[in-house]
Formats: sequence, C-alpha cells, structure tokens
Amino acid sequence: MVTGMDNKWTQLWLKYEAKKANGNDKYFKSISCQGFDYNNKILKNAVDELIKGAKGMLGVTAECGFTGCQTAEESGSTVKDSLLKATLILEKDETVAAEGYRLLEKDGCLYIKASDEKGLLYGAFALLRAVACEKTVRGMDKTVIPDNPLRMYNHWDNMDNSIERGYSGDSFFFENNEVVVNERTRDYARFVASIGINGVVINNVNVKNCATWLITDRYFEKVAEMAEIFAEYGIKFFLSLNYAATIELGGIDSADPLDERVIGWWKQKMAEVFDRIPNLGGFLVKADSEGRPGPFTYGRTQADGANMLADIVKPYGGIIIWRCFVYNCTQDWRDYKTDRARAGYDNFIKMDGDYHDNVILQIKNGPMDFQIREPISPLLGGLKKTNQMLEVQIAQEYTGHQIDVCYLIPMFKEILDFKTYCKEGADTVADVISGRTLGNKNTGIAAVCNTGNDNNWTGNDLAAANFYGFGRLAFTTALSAEEILDEWIRMTLSTDEDVVGTVKEIMLPSREVYENYTSPLGIGWMVTPHTHYGCSVDGYEYSRWGTYHRADHLGIGVDRSDKGTGYAQQYFEPNASIYNNIESCPENLLLFFHHVPYTYMLKTGKTLIQHIYDSHFEGVMQVEEMIAKWKSLKGKIADEVYELVEKRFDLQLYNAKEWRDQVNSYFWRKSGIADEKKRAIY
Amino acid sequence: MVTGMDNKWTQLWLKYEAKKANGNDKYFKSISCQGFDYNNKILKNAVDELIKGAKGMLGVTAECGFTGCQTAEESGSTVKDSLLKATLILEKDETVAAEGYRLLEKDGCLYIKASDEKGLLYGAFALLRAVACEKTVRGMDKTVIPDNPLRMYNHWDNMDNSIERGYSGDSFFFENNEVVVNERTRDYARFVASIGINGVVINNVNVKNCATWLITDRYFEKVAEMAEIFAEYGIKFFLSLNYAATIELGGIDSADPLDERVIGWWKQKMAEVFDRIPNLGGFLVKADSEGRPGPFTYGRTQADGANMLADIVKPYGGIIIWRCFVYNCTQDWRDYKTDRARAGYDNFIKMDGDYHDNVILQIKNGPMDFQIREPISPLLGGLKKTNQMLEVQIAQEYTGHQIDVCYLIPMFKEILDFKTYCKEGADTVADVISGRTLGNKNTGIAAVCNTGNDNNWTGNDLAAANFYGFGRLAFTTALSAEEILDEWIRMTLSTDEDVVGTVKEIMLPSREVYENYTSPLGIGWMVTPHTHYGCSVDGYEYSRWGTYHRADHLGIGVDRSDKGTGYAQQYFEPNASIYNNIESCPENLLLFFHHVPYTYMLKTGKTLIQHIYDSHFEGVMQVEEMIAKWKSLKGKIADEVYELVEKRFDLQLYNAKEWRDQVNSYFWRKSGIADEKKRAIY
Repeated sequence: MVTGMDNKWTQLWLKYEAKKANGNDKYFKSISCQGFDYNNKILKNAVDELIKGAKGMLGVTAECGFTGCQTAEESGSTVKDSLLKATLILEKDETVAAEGYRLLEKDGCLYIKASDEKGLLYGAFALLRAVACEKTVRGMDKTVIPDNPLRMYNHWDNMDNSIERGYSGDSFFFENNEVVVNERTRDYARFVASIGINGVVINNVNVKNCATWLITDRYFEKVAEMAEIFAEYGIKFFLSLNYAATIELGGIDSADPLDERVIGWWKQKMAEVFDRIPNLGGFLVKADSEGRPGPFTYGRTQADGANMLADIVKPYGGIIIWRCFVYNCTQDWRDYKTDRARAGYDNFIKMDGDYHDNVILQIKNGPMDFQIREPISPLLGGLKKTNQMLEVQIAQEYTGHQIDVCYLIPMFKEILDFKTYCKEGADTVADVISGRTLGNKNTGIAAVCNTGNDNNWTGNDLAAANFYGFGRLAFTTALSAEEILDEWIRMTLSTDEDVVGTVKEIMLPSREVYENYTSPLGIGWMVTPHTHYGCSVDGYEYSRWGTYHRADHLGIGVDRSDKGTGYAQQYFEPNASIYNNIESCPENLLLFFHHVPYTYMLKTGKTLIQHIYDSHFEGVMQVEEMIAKWKSLKGKIADEVYELVEKRFDLQLYNAKEWRDQVNSYFWRKSGIADEKKRAIY
Repeated sequence: MVTGMDNKWTQLWLKYEAKKANGNDKYFKSISCQGFDYNNKILKNAVDELIKGAKGMLGVTAECGFTGCQTAEESGSTVKDSLLKATLILEKDETVAAEGYRLLEKDGCLYIKASDEKGLLYGAFALLRAVACEKTVRGMDKTVIPDNPLRMYNHWDNMDNSIERGYSGDSFFFENNEVVVNERTRDYARFVASIGINGVVINNVNVKNCATWLITDRYFEKVAEMAEIFAEYGIKFFLSLNYAATIELGGIDSADPLDERVIGWWKQKMAEVFDRIPNLGGFLVKADSEGRPGPFTYGRTQADGANMLADIVKPYGGIIIWRCFVYNCTQDWRDYKTDRARAGYDNFIKMDGDYHDNVILQIKNGPMDFQIREPISPLLGGLKKTNQMLEVQIAQEYTGHQIDVCYLIPMFKEILDFKTYCKEGADTVADVISGRTLGNKNTGIAAVCNTGNDNNWTGNDLAAANFYGFGRLAFTTALSAEEILDEWIRMTLSTDEDVVGTVKEIMLPSREVYENYTSPLGIGWMVTPHTHYGCSVDGYEYSRWGTYHRADHLGIGVDRSDKGTGYAQQYFEPNASIYNNIESCPENLLLFFHHVPYTYMLKTGKTLIQHIYDSHFEGVMQVEEMIAKWKSLKGKIADEVYELVEKRFDLQLYNAKEWRDQVNSYFWRKSGIADEKKRAIY
C-alpha cells in the first residue's frame, strides 16, 4: 500500500532554502571520498544530501567524482582525478570515535572525517546545519562524538492508523492494518538521522491485535522494506513486542519465561524474525503494566522475563529494552499508603545485577508519568549494575497536545543534569545513561515521539522544535536548550534575527508558562481523564490510577517523606534529606513531597494559596504575551505556518483560561481564602 | 436481514407458565366473537393470545368457533353454533369508550366487551393478566378506559445497531444500517400492546447518518413491514425526523420553515412517506437541541418549525411531536445568571397558543435531564393552550444503567400527582397530559425505553418492571406503584407470596435507595461525564452543560429563588412561593432551589452535612439489605434470573460504595466538618 504520495508534507529543518553563503559556497563545488566503500548506502545518502543542500541553500551544483554517487560522470573520470580537484572531501579516519565526525577546513578544502559511514552521515548533516544557520565554515575544526550509545524514538503507532497519544494526525507507518512504506518513510528517516537518532521503534508499546503479528510472515516483507530504508540512514529498526505472543501466536497456553515450551517457541521465532528483518536491532517490551501481560502472571520476576528474551536474541546482536513502567493501576484511592511513585523503584531495584548484558531497562524520567514537573526517577542511578535508558516524551500527552506551545528541551536538560549522587564525579543522569557511570555500552535515551501524518509532521509547527531538539540533545548533551532552539529556528522558520529572537522569547519559557497555568508545584495531574488535555482538578482524584492531590479545606499535597509514603528515601543522600524536609525541598516540587497548608509561607513571601492564584493569573498573561509576540511575526515567516500556529494559540489561550479559572475557583471554594488581589475567581 | 431467529429471548410477563386455575379454566374452553370483523388482524392476535395463554397457564385447549381464528375448525361449525357453546365471548359494545374494555363474568360466561379491536386486545391481555396473577375471574365486572390518549415508547436506537443510552445490548430494530424485522419484532409488539402502549418511535431522536434516510425509498419496504406488525397490535408507528432533511436529502440549502422550497419539498416527501408507510402516526422531532439543527438557525420560532411540518402531515392524520429539550449547551460555568433549568419554559411559554392542533410538545418531567430527583417542569400546565405530552425515561441513564436496581414507577406517580395549580380541580400533571385540563385529545405520555437485544430485553431482569410498569401506568394512572409491581412479579418471577413480598421490599424503595447513595437533595449530576454512571462530584461542575452544584467550603446548591435565577417564579402559586422560600421548600429539592450552608438545620434535626453523610452511609446499607433479601430467593425463582441479578447487585454495591465514599470525602474535605458518628471518610 502506498499513501501520501502527493508529497503533501513539509521538509521541516531540511528545507534547503536559499541562504546567505558567507563564503561557504566554494566548498561545495566538488565532492570526493577517500577510504569508504563507494557503494555504501549510508555514504550515498550523505552525498545525496550534501548535493541537495548545496544546490538548495547555496545554488551550487556539486560535482561528485566517485562511483555510487548519483551525479558522478563515471566515464572518463577517475577517483584520483576527482580527488585532486575536490573541495569537500569525505575521509575515513580511524581516529574519530564510532558514529562521531570531524569537520575540518584546511587550505581551502573542507573535510568530513569519520571512522564509519554513520559518523560521516552525521557529519554531513552537521555541515548542512552550519550552512543553514549561515555560519561560515572557514577555519572550522570540530569533532563531535555522540554522548549516548542509543538515541531512539519510540512511536506509539497502531496498525489501524491511530496513534496512542498522537496529536499530529494519524500514523504514517501503518494504515488499515498494513505497513506503509513510501517516500514519507524515507523523509522520516532523513529527518531523524539528521539529528543523530540511531534507533526507532515503530509500533505502540501496547501491542495488540494485528501488531502482535508484525513478527510473522504476514508482515515480514513490508517490515523488512521499511527497516532497509532505516538502515540506509544508520537507524536500527526495533519493534514493540507482545510478551504474550506465545499464547496469541504460538498456541501455547503460557508465557511463563521459564517454561521450556515458551523458550522453544521464542527461539524458533527469533531465528525467523532476525533472518527476515536484517536491520532489526531488537525489541521494546511493556510487560506487567497497565493491563499488559508479563512474567508476574507466572510468579516470575521482571528479570526472568527480560533475560529469557535477551538470551534468545543475543546471537543476532539483538537487545531487549524493558520498560520499568510497572505499577498497580487498580489502586484504591482510599488507600493513603500505597504510592504509585514508589512502584518503579520497588519493582526493579531488588533485581539490580540480575539483568543480562543485552537487556536495557527503560526508565521514565519521573516516577509518575510525564507530568509537567516531577522529580527524577530514583531508579536512574539507583540501579548500580544494570543497563539504563532514559525515557522522555515529546508527544505532548500531559503538556498541551501540541495545541499549547511547550518547548521541552529545558526540562530534558534539567533531567540530564540532575545529580543522583550514585557515584562521585559521574553521578548525573547524563552520566548514567551515557555509560560513563557504569562503563557500559547498552545505554542511552529514548523519546516517545510526537509525529503523525499531518503535513507539518507535529500538528503545531512549533512542536517540531521538540522533535528536532530531542535528537540533538541525545547526541550532544552539553548543548543548551537555547542553542538547539536557535538552530531549529534558523533552519526551519527564518534566519532573520528578529524572528530568531522573538521565537526564542516565546518558546524558551513556554514550559514554565504551561506549568504556571496548570497543576502547581509538582503535584501533577488535575487533567481531564482519558484525554489528558484540559483541566479537571478532581479528574483523577477518586480513581484507580494512583494519581492523587489529596486537597482538603486546609491544604494539598502528598506526604512522601519518611512520615508519609517514604518515597523520598528512595534517593541517595543528600537528595533524600533535601526532599524529605519541607524547608529544603525545592519549592517547585513541594506538593509532590509534602502535604502543605494553604497558609504555608513560601520563600517568595507568598502563601501557598496566593502562589496558586498568582501563578495561574500570570500563566494566562504570559500566554497573552506569547500571542502578541507571535502576531509581531506576521509576514516575517511563511503564512501557512503563521496562521496555523496563530489558530493554535487561540486554543491555548482558551485552555489556559479554563485552567486558571478552574484551578483558582476550585481552591478558593475549598479553602475559603480569598485572592489578596481580588481578581475574578468563580 | 433476519437476525436473532434462534428465539434466544425471554417472554417477560407473557411467559404463560402453568398457574393455579382458581376456577378460571372453565371460561377458556370455547371462544366466540360477536360484532367484530373476524378477519381483523388485531382481533386475530387477541384470540391467538387468549388461546396461547389458556393453554400455557391453565392447560386448556380453547376451541375457537369463528373464521379468522387459527384453531377454528372451519368445516361443519357455524358462528351461531360456536356462540351457543362459548364460555368466553368477545363482544362489540359501543357503550365502552374507544380503546377501553369491559371484563364481565355472568352466568358462567366471560365477556370481553369493547367498541373497537384495540380495546378488545387490551381486554384480552387484562384477562390473561388476571389469570397469570391467579386471580379468579368469577363475578368480575370491570371497565377500564385508558387515561391517556397517547401512550408511547421512544427508542433511541441507531441504525448501526447501537443504542444511545442503551444498557441492554444493542438494537433489535436496526443492524448494519438496515431495518430488522423478525419474530422479535412481533414479540416486542405483543409485549408493549399487552401493557397498553399505542405508539412507538423506533429511532433515536438524534437523527444522523442512515437514519435520515428512513423516509426514503432505501428503507420504505422494511419500515412498512415493521409498521404493519405494529398495526396488528394497535400500535401506531412513528419515526424521529431529521429537521435538516431538506438539506441532507433534498439538496436545498435551507431548512427555514418559511422557505417555500422547504415547504414544497416536505409536502412531496410526506405524500410519499404516508403512502409508503400506511400505519405511520407521525414524527418526533428534536430541533435546536444539543447540536441538532432547528428553526432557530433561521431566526424562526419553534412554533414556525413545528407548525410547518404539522400542516403538511395533517391531511394524512399525522401528528408532530416536538421536544422541548432546548437549552444552551455551551454555557460558561463561570456564568451564575444563566440557568439551564429555566430554558424549557423560557423557550416555549411565549408561543403558547401558537402551536397547531396536531402539534404536541413533549416535555421532560424535570427541567434538567432525568435526574434521580428534580422538580416537575413548570411547562407542564404552564402551557395553557398547547397540547402537551410528558416524557419520562426508563432507560436508566442517570439512575444506574440497569446495573443498579431502580424501580421508577414511584417517581412517575409523584410526577403525575404533582399539582401544578394551572386549573382548579384539574391541575395535576396527570390531568394536563390526559387532556382533562384543556379538553384536548393530542396529549399523552412517552418514555425513553430501556430495551435492547439482550436475552432478557432490559439487561437487568428487574429493570423489566419499569418496561412493564410504564405502560400500565400510562393506561391507568390511578394504579399504585405497588399494584403494578405486584402484577409484574406474579407474571414474571413467581406467584409465591414470599417471592412477591421480598421482591417488593427490594424494589419499592429502590429509587430512594439510589438517591441516598448518589447526589443529595435534588442537586443532581455529580456523575461521570459522558457515561453518566458512577460518581464524579465535580464531573460536570466546570463544564458547558449548565449542570452545577456550586459547592464551596461553606455550602452547596443553586439559588433559583427570586434572589437567584428566578426559576422558582416559573411556577404558579403557591408552588412558586413554596419553592422560593428555603423553609417551605421540600427538603428533597432543597439544593435544587437554594444554596444552603452545610450547617443548615434540616427538619430532621440534622445539619445538611450530617444528612449528606448519613444518607450515603444509609444508602449502602440499604443495598446490602437488598442483596441479602435477594439471596433469600435462591431456588425460588429461575436460576438464570437469580444469578444474573445477583451479579448486577455486586456491581451495584461497588457503585454505591464508590458514591458513598467519594461524596462523603468530597464534602468532608471541602467543609472540614467531621461526621458526628466518626465513620470512615477519606
């Protein structure tokens, strides 16, 4: 099946529109290559991209003097000849670490050096990025090695074309229970390769219905075709696995990981799967979570389940990425002792060291579920002998559905910079997931992706900054949120300094703005059940999901100190003490860790209740300012982008006002304490 | 299409199982008929039913000595002969009012007298009811004339087989966008005819998609086939109409009721429709309501819309039933002035007298939407020159989804008995809708029905008491809720006095029990949005639906007095003053009419908050008692009924506890006032 062949989708940050050359054009006249296999597909794609970019951005038609290149004049030219006149040289250099690249300008020539084709591809995209940002390459000598071994996108796409928590249209991977491979597949691969992504899971972690059959002959051909396109851009292909496939596909009445029949079935199945999908990197598994089957059903541990699969895929170089999102999702709201926040740590810490080397535990950034503000999961770094991967979410499930603007890279920076105190000198989350802490290689970072088949890929054009930024940050953790945003704006919207500056003013604080008008001080939730968009203060308060704010007429918050659920004690010191004590607890997480009276005085000199009122009024005003700033850009950016975003801003303002008024009215009605400034509360 | 032909459905109260004869058997030996057309289908069905009932309940094989009767031995017998030996005589008697019947036992013969075949059919079912209830017919002389001209069931069935607010499986009228006619259609007609229903609307008032096409050639044949079956049981067939059909079917860009093109299209369409569906009684219309199109769109009145259609269907004897459920469903919750309760009256009272004679306004019993306790709509009786029909709902949308037991006939009795003070001596709702108040004929009562294709028709077997009871009450308003329930139990479950007594104890108070554990004192709502099952105290509090409780830390309720929204002033005196004054307002409606402090002392000597706590604890205890009573019936009623109901009781208890704990916790947290009895609140 081929769909979307009308190419009605944008090119995001790879538009290759005309740019100021700043002397860059002369380097793109002639491209040559040294030391690489000219027929390598990744190399070919890198060269194609360079040619396309030079043509589009600089108006230069690059000559390419070697076999395997589309524009090579194969007759009459030799590699030697071409090398002599080349201005841009792709050079194999074993001193550059794997997947890394060196961009070097020397004597009027520009070199992209790498020890492998993937590094070369990343170098090519880095070079094009510099050109797109109108930076001169003269005098450049820059070596970049990716910080994280695995840099992945997880898609929650279903085979019926829907996307779980998708806000950008439907799936471009699946339609009518078939796998879709077309030009959009290739564009997707180009985009994510250009930002350094090297692994993609195409199907929803909740594997149901037809998706269970992706590892069967029904789909092998198309899946392999898609995986091959990914391979040509250096991207390993992954699938989410149905842990109960032995039952649903195998006809065995068990999924017990120690049952020989189960093991035997998987052995045969994996031999078949890796044979039929050559570029397969392994599997992502959500087990024993939110109704998904898993080893707990059979009295086995998570390690039993993960290791069983890992041992079987090991001969094929496969890995098993095992999600740690295991908690009791049928909790009784009357139960104040059970704490969902504790669950990830409690369920996985005991088996630290039991997981085999090709198992990676994928850990959500916070202990709850992608709220606008959560503490960092204590499992990260808490596990001392286990491969760990950080999971964040750029699909804006709880952060505005790509209607509301919410630039998430600052949040991800906070997460990566968080000091876990797991090991002196190498204790940030960034250290842990890069392998620096433990010296391991099967580590990295994954994001639940925010794309769909909307023309602009991400629903709101501005949400593409997260799609772009996650990859950049995963590759180079030291980049600042502002640097990444700067690049994205220049590549996507405009290099006009006024546009760059204004869009930064809008987007850099947008996460705090969203936080201001939604749930306060780390308590989270308060969202409309099921959809997770819009305010419902009590929406999850009397539910089974373990997500409570416990507000009464005197105060709000969950006591997770040692006098409460003890969650704070899951951290290493001094974090445990800092969180445990209401005075030292960071105030933006105050209600996550403590039940606090409305009259409690914050360090700002405001009471808690006044803070709630003020921040909600402020949040709406900030949205109004964002909108005014956006309106100042009319005519300076593409009309279709301007207008689409403008419409979403209308919705965001409506949403922000609803949140403001509902939250304020809720707490005013409950506390009876009036706003000091006497603003409208209902 | 034919489905469900395996007859996997129950016979409800027409089971005709063996009964104690109490001397009744002798009357059923021979049936004859005098004065009626022997070939009339209704007559034939009445006779069939008598034969079937006599055989089943009394073991008597009735001889039927006249043409048209299935068991007649046509050869060798004459009508005269048969009449001589007949023990049961169906006799035309012009002194009995239309649709009424007289049952008379005289000189060892039993007579069913009526002036028309419908009356005869009702008489036959009445006789069978007496037999089923094991009452002797000896000495009987009873004349029953229906109180309400129109006695209707409204089905909200969609053509895709779903039922809006259906809790008993899917539709048995539609499947795969086709009309389904089979033996179940006939059984449905038998059931509703047996309780006196004389009009049925088969499709959802929200007419969309294929249902718009029911008035076209695509469906005429099947629709007419179904309508014909209904005709054979004296039931007029009605359809819900898409007011915008001129646009959707007619290709006219308007539905303006004064537009000649619109009028012209409808004239042609109605000529066609009444020609193709001979038994068509007219149409039910939901216009300008909850997103449905209507005359307001064109700046016309509801009367303009209704009259236009009514004038066109008049030559065919058709009527237009126009729903009054018109209100602003995109209200701002911050707006304390707009009051949804006022909307029906405000939208319709001004045009009183403008509606043509074959228009009936169908008015929901309360001003909101079928809550467990509401005041009576002030439109009922408020309209002094307009045909009115009462609409109630036996589909348990807000009253427990046919999971929770809620016998609704006591509520309907309250509604019918309500004194509107519209006219001295004839001012109850029953007077108004029967035509006694205004001397009009196009009046009556309709219920949104609770059936579906579940084997037992109503999901919960006990919910069939509402399906049965509504018809009985519509026919004879003076029947008590207990009499009706008594009949239903004896006909359906058992005539064992222990069963009869116990089931009455369970069901008679069940409406108050449901009220106890759900929303208190007339405030309504507090339900899970969309589904309307289960508790969510704030679920509709910050929404667009106009359904607010306005609870704060001091009190709860909506001020609808003359100091508030003024809704109370829509009633005639003394009702207006009674409701207006917090001291005279009936306490079970207190929060509907007043915003009341939690510390307000009720006439019971309890504070409002203590009443909330007590009633919710009591409600759960009552459910536990109901369950204990039910368990005592094990072995005394059919196992499949016992077990199905037992399972639903488990769910009801869970639901009741959730309501109790959520409501109590909500108000404890909000008020800070503890339960005097120190019971568990969270």
